[in-house]
Amino acid sequence: MIEQKLAELGFTLDSPPEPIGNYEAAVISGNMLYISGQLPLADGKLVYQGRVGSELTVSQGYRAAELAAVNVLAQIKKKLGTFERLMKIVRVDGYISSSTEFIEQPKVLDGASDLFKKVLGEKSGHARTVFGYSKLPKNATVELVVIAEIK
Amino acid sequence: MIEQKLAELGFTLDSPPEPIGNYEAAVISGNMLYISGQLPLADGKLVYQGRVGSELTVSQGYRAAELAAVNVLAQIKKKLGTFERLMKIVRVDGYISSSTEFIEQPKVLDGASDLFKKVLGEKSGHARTVFGYSKLPKNATVELVVIAEIK
Amino acid sequence: MIEQKLAELGFTLDSPPEPIGNYEAAVISGNMLYISGQLPLADGKLVYQGRVGSELTVSQGYRAAELAAVNVLAQIKKKLGTFERLMKIVRVDGYISSSTEFIEQPKVLDGASDLFKKVLGEKSGHARTVFGYSKLPKNATVELVVIAEIK
Repeated sequence: MIEQKLAELGFTLDSPPEPIGNYEAAVISGNMLYISGQLPLADGKLVYQGRVGSELTVSQGYRAAELAAVNVLAQIKKKLGTFERLMKIVRVDGYISSSTEFIEQPKVLDGASDLFKKVLGEKSGHARTVFGYSKLPKNATVELVVIAEIK
Repeated sequence: MIEQKLAELGFTLDSPPEPIGNYEAAVISGNMLYISGQLPLADGKLVYQGRVGSELTVSQGYRAAELAAVNVLAQIKKKLGTFERLMKIVRVDGYISSSTEFIEQPKVLDGASDLFKKVLGEKSGHARTVFGYSKLPKNATVELVVIAEIK
Repeated sequence: MIEQKLAELGFTLDSPPEPIGNYEAAVISGNMLYISGQLPLADGKLVYQGRVGSELTVSQGYRAAELAAVNVLAQIKKKLGTFERLMKIVRVDGYISSSTEFIEQPKVLDGASDLFKKVLGEKSGHARTVFGYSKLPKNATVELVVIAEIK
């Protein structure tokens, strides 16, 4: 069970924050679930801020990506009510706040891909793209944009 | 009626500019409409250029996002012929040209989300992600990438 | 035939590199094929690195986009086994490593759009968006993110 696997990794599925504005945290269209950009939040607070390569190490960035992935799962759970309807993670775009010379963003985004694999197993296989940013909104370290297939 | 609501807000649906190159302004795949990145254009001219937080205020950025959203609607109308076929805005990615320290990009992108809400009502609910950029193509202030569901 | 057209342009479809990590190079969901970000690789090596506008000319950037598009085709071939199942390129997001003042990213991305047109003909029509970046992962000059419709 997904919540149990998350608990073993030290994570809980908090109720994710509501969007502030005229948009939605997640939208269903046909068999696809589009999830708004998710940040490394816990208890409604941004846990990781600043750039990997200067303020943060790769290892801290990896944990930021992991936590943002937990928030993606929280949004999926909230929207669908149950993980039973989740067929697979289809696409992950990962945005990494990076110092000027940092080019190891893939190692940071592995935090998200690895978490999905550990928790979702076969349903975790996704296409992904990684980007370095000089600054993300709210100075977050990682932002994840995910599309999932549902039934 | 959508054109009437736009007119009340002071906008008209100009014929949107044709893409210059081997691509299309909008592509239908199944029930999904993928729209190429839209800029804050009016009468074929870029109205808002430069960075929010330095050259432009948040309020000006908001209006740039609003105008880019009008261009999204113009592309939808052109591709579908009628808004009757539009089921909903599914996803909005908003790219905001930003000064180095600016982190209030969500307030700028609200210009697009609010316009969709005012004009489309129930059909406007979308997942969204916002990004800050140091410079966008043609030095535009805002670029919007939208996926819509159609029938 | 697509391989033949590529050969006439001087390209071969190498076996594309496997993803290193818990993700996939390409994922099918319904009729859509989502392809992970592709770089300008040949024989597994990154051919174009650095920024257009400073280290590279527009013409070199154009060829980088062209080569990244060849890698997209290689991923499609690998995933589907045959180009017979490819219905069309639906969406192309093009990320261009750019010097601070460079704003002609569309001319660079034309390298990808033109290659798709030459090789795929009617199946090449896509919505697209172009972005300038100060630095891409691995210091690549171009990264392409593509969604295709398949049968």
